[in-house]
Amino acid sequence: MKNVNKDRLHNWLEEINRHGVTEKGGITRLALSDEDMAAQAYVMKELEALGLSVRRDALGNIIARREGTQALPAIAMGSHLDTVIEGGRYDGVAGVVAAMEAVAMLQDEALRHPLEVIIFMAEESAPFGYATMGSKLISGKAAPRDFAKSIKAGKPSFVDMLKLRGFDPDNYQTALRHPDELKAFFELHIEQGKVLYESGEQVGIVENIAAPTRFKVTVEGLADHSGATPMGQRRDALVSAAKLILAVQDCGLAYADEGTVATVGVVDVEPGTINVIPGKVTMLVDLRGVVYDAVMQAFQDFKEAVREVADEDGVLINVDMLSSDQPVPLSLDMANVLAEAAEEQGLRYRRMNSGAGHDAMFMAGITPTSMIFIPCKDGISHNAAEHAELEDLAAGTALLAAAVKKVAQ
Amino acid sequence: MKNVNKDRLHNWLEEINRHGVTEKGGITRLALSDEDMAAQAYVMKELEALGLSVRRDALGNIIARREGTQALPAIAMGSHLDTVIEGGRYDGVAGVVAAMEAVAMLQDEALRHPLEVIIFMAEESAPFGYATMGSKLISGKAAPRDFAKSIKAGKPSFVDMLKLRGFDPDNYQTALRHPDELKAFFELHIEQGKVLYESGEQVGIVENIAAPTRFKVTVEGLADHSGATPMGQRRDALVSAAKLILAVQDCGLAYADEGTVATVGVVDVEPGTINVIPGKVTMLVDLRGVVYDAVMQAFQDFKEAVREVADEDGVLINVDMLSSDQPVPLSLDMANVLAEAAEEQGLRYRRMNSGAGHDAMFMAGITPTSMIFIPCKDGISHNAAEHAELEDLAAGTALLAAAVKKVAQ
Repeated sequence: MKNVNKDRLHNWLEEINRHGVTEKGGITRLALSDEDMAAQAYVMKELEALGLSVRRDALGNIIARREGTQALPAIAMGSHLDTVIEGGRYDGVAGVVAAMEAVAMLQDEALRHPLEVIIFMAEESAPFGYATMGSKLISGKAAPRDFAKSIKAGKPSFVDMLKLRGFDPDNYQTALRHPDELKAFFELHIEQGKVLYESGEQVGIVENIAAPTRFKVTVEGLADHSGATPMGQRRDALVSAAKLILAVQDCGLAYADEGTVATVGVVDVEPGTINVIPGKVTMLVDLRGVVYDAVMQAFQDFKEAVREVADEDGVLINVDMLSSDQPVPLSLDMANVLAEAAEEQGLRYRRMNSGAGHDAMFMAGITPTSMIFIPCKDGISHNAAEHAELEDLAAGTALLAAAVKKVAQ
Repeated sequence: MKNVNKDRLHNWLEEINRHGVTEKGGITRLALSDEDMAAQAYVMKELEALGLSVRRDALGNIIARREGTQALPAIAMGSHLDTVIEGGRYDGVAGVVAAMEAVAMLQDEALRHPLEVIIFMAEESAPFGYATMGSKLISGKAAPRDFAKSIKAGKPSFVDMLKLRGFDPDNYQTALRHPDELKAFFELHIEQGKVLYESGEQVGIVENIAAPTRFKVTVEGLADHSGATPMGQRRDALVSAAKLILAVQDCGLAYADEGTVATVGVVDVEPGTINVIPGKVTMLVDLRGVVYDAVMQAFQDFKEAVREVADEDGVLINVDMLSSDQPVPLSLDMANVLAEAAEEQGLRYRRMNSGAGHDAMFMAGITPTSMIFIPCKDGISHNAAEHAELEDLAAGTALLAAAVKKVAQ
């Protein structure tokens, strides 16, 4: 097997991240945006240059394949190219370039099993309100009708946008991957937390992935003139919403020992002008952990807080569940293959859980799946300051290539 | 003097409120929008039909005038046509149609003093972040440079928008009104509070106008991945902002006995996606009262809360003063003229303060000014449910006409 080529990794990262650079120095490459489509086109060209046969499925996922010496199930690797608003340069992209480089490193190896690089469509929920759509769809975990609702009035849904881009979600069943087509799936990703960065370990081998429970909270009070409405006569939806934001925080803190986290990421205030008491507030909440019971208990605690605030403030509060996914255990066999390869390479590694969701969660439903984490600076992700050292990316990539070789030969 | 014509009042209200009707049944007729320009064009036509000579000044204020039998200072009446987002049908418009009707009622009266109807440009702060701009400018209280900043990046400022509409803010000095041109100013307005509605009185005669102190609060934490960042390692700008929203509420409550109110009307969360911990929150706060010392004390209390939250949460919080106006005493002489007329007409009235700001605040700086309040249902204003009874509008209009006649003859 060839050595990892750091220059090539670096160059691919740079070229992909030409697409979506913002004024603030972040990357906004929303799924199916012009920037995303341009980055995908670039990657498809590079995958072809590596000698792979490249196709797109009905949902816009990119599948690049090299056949094996025998007609056996493939070993797949991959990640995603889309980002959040003002995101970073590594989330998703690190796993894409690692998979590309692993193919390059294995180019001269005769392997019995085929290899595949999969670039998943629409991993981030920023534009459409749903996450990991490409992997949910090809693993049969969801159908396009599950993503047909638009998150904001007047904006296209994921399904609308797929059609606008010329894809064919009505024929999504042609894109389904079957367990007998695949032998394993590996995804390299930045940790998006501080564990590796603070411990100094070079890689993490992921055993479980935490899953999000997401809900929408709507508070309805009464819009009224901010100057002429005495304090005692108000039903200010934002004051009640502020109490609920703190309740979400308290729920996360109460179950932090079980690895639970809770976040209000979106707040919409209506009518949203300085001289009108807010009449309505809509919030989106993300609650997650690796222990599903703790997540559900936190959710029950939040609903209790909702009842208290509604009673106390005389406002109407609705909580609508958007999604509630179970935490996912990954393949112990594939984690062991990674650990064996890491020991052979003399890497400092740890076995750990993932707080963030990944496409690997859904691939785990159809094939033995594992993940490699690499450290990211200060644990910062989904932010312009997101950074991973090229050394760490190269070490993770070499581990990926070695593990794939072990499984594919 | 002719009797008040309720049908005409009703018809003018209906015709003006054809402009800006929303799907939700409210009125959105933002200053200088197409809807506002159309409503103004209609009113100008009607003012001409009343025999007035109608002109626009360099700032788009409409001034309609009838000469007196002598060359004396004018008695002016008026209000505004623009609304908030999803506002109601009476705020501003009631005063415009009352002034028009008063002119009609006085049509056959030979009066020594000229009469003027003034329709002020841009009373509401919704589109540009500044309120009562037309009256501030013609009273010399402000210059266009004070309104040249845009409230939202990429949106035109008030001054930009004036130019786009063909007005000439650079020559704003030609629009200044001088104290010797005017003898008095009267504005009829819905109360926008519940005092008259609950007491059953038909009109209020306003003695003081509360003034807003407005400030922008910016909270800077750290945007980070919502799944992979443990609760203890976060600097969530929205959690800190929620504490400040409750602090604003507490400040209003603490000085409620002095007529102080405090409202957060605008919240902007960045980046504003469900899976990113908010890194930055910007809020606009409106704090007001008739006792300026109480308002300032509430503001100091809020700044103390800001220091505590910043210390406790490790976030950066900035408070930028946008404006801080002194409460305004209106003319006691003109209030007495109104009270005398009200008694002659057998109206149930009360002398009171205004919690909301009005163009009359600034006209009071150049001429003796008073206001007539009429009840509005449940005190609701700045809302689609805003409603005033035609009977009450007619009673207020008859009082306006009678008072104007007393001063003008």
